[in-house]
Amino acid sequence: MFYHELNPKIDYSRSNLRWNAWGANDQDFGRKSQMPEILKLLQREFNLNSIRETPAVALEDIKLPNGKLSASDIKNLSGIVGKNNLKTDRLERVFHSAGKSYYDVLRLHTNTLKSFVDGVIYPKKDSEIIKVLEYCSKNKITVIPFGGGSSVVGGLEVIKGKGQKAVLSLDMTEMTELISFDPISMTATFQAGIYGPKLEYGLNLKGYTLGHFPQSFEYSTLGGWVAARSAGQQSNRYGKIEEIISSVKLISPNGVVETLRAPAASIGPDWNQIIAGSEGLLGVISEVTIKIHRIPETRKYFGLVFPDILSSINFIRKANHEEIKTSMLRLSDANETRLYEYLGELGKKNTAGRKFKKFLQNSYLKWVGIGGNKCVVLVGLDGSRTEVDRSFNSLKNLWKKGGAIYAGEKLGQNWIHSRYNMPFLRNHIMQFGMGVDTMETSTTYDRLEDLHKAGIESLQNSIPSSIAMCHLSHSYHDGACLYYTILFPMDEKKPEDQWFKMKRMVSDTFHAHKAPISHHHGVGFDHKKWYQSGLGKPGIDALNGLKKSLDQKEILNPGKLFHS
Amino acid sequence: MFYHELNPKIDYSRSNLRWNAWGANDQDFGRKSQMPEILKLLQREFNLNSIRETPAVALEDIKLPNGKLSASDIKNLSGIVGKNNLKTDRLERVFHSAGKSYYDVLRLHTNTLKSFVDGVIYPKKDSEIIKVLEYCSKNKITVIPFGGGSSVVGGLEVIKGKGQKAVLSLDMTEMTELISFDPISMTATFQAGIYGPKLEYGLNLKGYTLGHFPQSFEYSTLGGWVAARSAGQQSNRYGKIEEIISSVKLISPNGVVETLRAPAASIGPDWNQIIAGSEGLLGVISEVTIKIHRIPETRKYFGLVFPDILSSINFIRKANHEEIKTSMLRLSDANETRLYEYLGELGKKNTAGRKFKKFLQNSYLKWVGIGGNKCVVLVGLDGSRTEVDRSFNSLKNLWKKGGAIYAGEKLGQNWIHSRYNMPFLRNHIMQFGMGVDTMETSTTYDRLEDLHKAGIESLQNSIPSSIAMCHLSHSYHDGACLYYTILFPMDEKKPEDQWFKMKRMVSDTFHAHKAPISHHHGVGFDHKKWYQSGLGKPGIDALNGLKKSLDQKEILNPGKLFHS
Repeated sequence: MFYHELNPKIDYSRSNLRWNAWGANDQDFGRKSQMPEILKLLQREFNLNSIRETPAVALEDIKLPNGKLSASDIKNLSGIVGKNNLKTDRLERVFHSAGKSYYDVLRLHTNTLKSFVDGVIYPKKDSEIIKVLEYCSKNKITVIPFGGGSSVVGGLEVIKGKGQKAVLSLDMTEMTELISFDPISMTATFQAGIYGPKLEYGLNLKGYTLGHFPQSFEYSTLGGWVAARSAGQQSNRYGKIEEIISSVKLISPNGVVETLRAPAASIGPDWNQIIAGSEGLLGVISEVTIKIHRIPETRKYFGLVFPDILSSINFIRKANHEEIKTSMLRLSDANETRLYEYLGELGKKNTAGRKFKKFLQNSYLKWVGIGGNKCVVLVGLDGSRTEVDRSFNSLKNLWKKGGAIYAGEKLGQNWIHSRYNMPFLRNHIMQFGMGVDTMETSTTYDRLEDLHKAGIESLQNSIPSSIAMCHLSHSYHDGACLYYTILFPMDEKKPEDQWFKMKRMVSDTFHAHKAPISHHHGVGFDHKKWYQSGLGKPGIDALNGLKKSLDQKEILNPGKLFHS
Repeated sequence: MFYHELNPKIDYSRSNLRWNAWGANDQDFGRKSQMPEILKLLQREFNLNSIRETPAVALEDIKLPNGKLSASDIKNLSGIVGKNNLKTDRLERVFHSAGKSYYDVLRLHTNTLKSFVDGVIYPKKDSEIIKVLEYCSKNKITVIPFGGGSSVVGGLEVIKGKGQKAVLSLDMTEMTELISFDPISMTATFQAGIYGPKLEYGLNLKGYTLGHFPQSFEYSTLGGWVAARSAGQQSNRYGKIEEIISSVKLISPNGVVETLRAPAASIGPDWNQIIAGSEGLLGVISEVTIKIHRIPETRKYFGLVFPDILSSINFIRKANHEEIKTSMLRLSDANETRLYEYLGELGKKNTAGRKFKKFLQNSYLKWVGIGGNKCVVLVGLDGSRTEVDRSFNSLKNLWKKGGAIYAGEKLGQNWIHSRYNMPFLRNHIMQFGMGVDTMETSTTYDRLEDLHKAGIESLQNSIPSSIAMCHLSHSYHDGACLYYTILFPMDEKKPEDQWFKMKRMVSDTFHAHKAPISHHHGVGFDHKKWYQSGLGKPGIDALNGLKKSLDQKEILNPGKLFHS
């Protein structure tokens, strides 16, 4: 039995991965055949007269400057990792010069990306990483650690450090070994370059799961998850990645920091929690020990329909405060609920029978007080049959009090089936003058409703013809995450400025509400301004003091996060 | 209803607190009347011919050097906090010059403590802390932040920073306000100087609990808990303090670092987890927002008797892996079980009836395979009646499989009743040439049994006539804490050397097993060597880089933790 729809057969060879879009060439959007209808739907929502074609530029046409690594650098770096593991060809350089944010893909699409790495190095073991960092420190070469390359916050923006001459991408994906496996303590140690599905598949074969399924799961790595503090969709059960790690090994230019494999300790500032979120600025994460779990006996994923957002927030809050075990409580606000409903109708014939069924459904909803503000909450339960039944019954009490109705398991199954699929939609709509981006934050329950509203308003004000919506996908004792999606017609003349404005307005809103600039995407380059302002100068200066000790020459991922 | 035996009426005025022993003058060991019998029991265990009296030196006789604060310092510092809040008298200086470790108390007892603070300052608000740190940075005065003063790891050892002229204790216990209370998100914000019982009492009055009950609870503060990463006895349910905090305010000489009140975030290294465990080296913790809980409907605490340590470890491990909700799983090893049994018999008349009952009990235990290696596990359950019943039944399956027998709720009630009382025993035995100390660590389940044994052996080898025992008081998904107690006859000539040897041998053992030097006591001065060696130079240097940015003049608690 394999857990949660992993696809262990993805071919990650660089020639099979899209350099300017999401995913592998042989993977695609599951509803590709419905693209014409989806585009029409968006055209209507955006009030567009026509749909324009905006094809991407070809790889050969990307304006790629000559690489800045000298012949001697290439010889010496090749000497460390072997000739085949240092790459300077066009595909490798372009693939490693951006992440997968809308802004990244837009620039690749339109040939406006300006900075590129000069080479890519693939170490196979720790000793090679140590030598590479030593060489680059001595020879003024910036190093950007690279996992799956799925950053959506400019974490891979190519910024050369001050006084440095070239930029090297350090790609970890050849370091994928299972180093140790401890079924007694339920932990496993992996090299950090392993992709999600390969790690999960390896554990599943032994009867275990990591349970960490971020939306990027298929194209992100263990080390990347830790570096960016990612959250899996079942984080209510398994925790965010920073709660899952038991120990970490970080290779810095000043030496190795490796935390003890212990369940808890009282030994100064917690290095696991310094390394988690370090985004490549402090060193290269080379090994991670993670907590693992037995694959649950069963699961039950189902939908609920609530009258409005406040009743659904209260349901989620109470489920957390009553400590009811769930894997996922995923609330779609009224806008997202409406869009998913439209999408769900696509491809279905509007017969008289269907129309009548729909009429009855809506009449019933109206009768129980659920109207145009309705919100769907998807509930995920994993565990033993007893546990799942128990949680279901405890939740039922809550949702009935909240005025919700049970909407069945089909919604849940559909979600599971398409959980990693939405990023592929962007690949298609960007060919037709449309864009999509996501922003996320978190706050305490007392402020959730206000911040939800303010976030939506700022998005809609930033691009008036857009569709802005939000879901609440991770919840805790004291609050929850808010995850916004905006779909919009790309500005024909200045699409980058359009994006800057949108990003700025929503980020200012988060900041004004004293909410963090990210719940699980990270800071990178794009969120730096708001992150630094939120933490304040003393904290930022102190982190730079920490960095300068580990990375004296400041070669590691400069210009991001806390680094000016 | 008040939760977990708090005593909200302790008088914390300095004249009522023991300066050279545990607790307040009007609080004492609950079984004080049995002290003669307890001393006889220990005499027999230690093979002592006689019990010698070792009374403590009087406060007036403590060799206290003249204070090094100049008249101008005193005037300026008084100017910041008011005349009454700067103290330089004998009692205040001595009280603030040591923690409560055996080594601290031994030195006060025998008049061998060498370093004393020169004054004590009691700020009442953040702005005063800021001014005090500014003044001391400019005027070369070391500052040691002080909470309850209950450190048992030399966290308050008076070490003057290099080139500094005087040492000031910064006592936080006048900062005790409830700043905000949020029942929706279930959080509360307190000033950090509040003592455990006052904080818990304030919450109980509103129907809430923090659920954090370290053994030092009655004499420790919120800020101290965070600074040292303390663990409460119900940590299985409520978490260690670093899991309980939602946000923290740290006042450093370089300015304020205050974390956002958010349930989770992806914004770089986690400052909550840098500040937790910072032990006064990075700044003064002035405010903490903590997660709170409704007072549970009911509780059930009971004992189980297992045949040996492995079967009891496996029970605890499986209870964690099956995610059965517990507040406490507290395993006493065979030695501790035996000692508690002896103590339990004290004061009871050994009638023929009792002897026969005891004979029947032992025969039954033997018959079910439980003999001289038996271990008691105390189980604590708090929650709704349904939750408590459910956990009880799930655990019953496990303990039956583990060959344990149920030993009733009396054991649990006794434990609850005397939970904060054991530290008072030391006050008495140190008057009669006997000592007691505790050491703790943690490790993963696969290594627990080996480390348990090695720890006991190293303690027994360090002081051959001692009683060494261990309990396992906090457990997790991947492992548990080991908490050792050693009772011993004090060396008549060189009691300090005796303690150094014991501490060194057990610490070397933890270190050799790659286990942290502390699970919840902290590092301070006493554990510094092993902590630094366990983390390694790159990590230590980096933390000093962090410190130097926040505390440029290195005035804050120098010479401890990572600071050389």
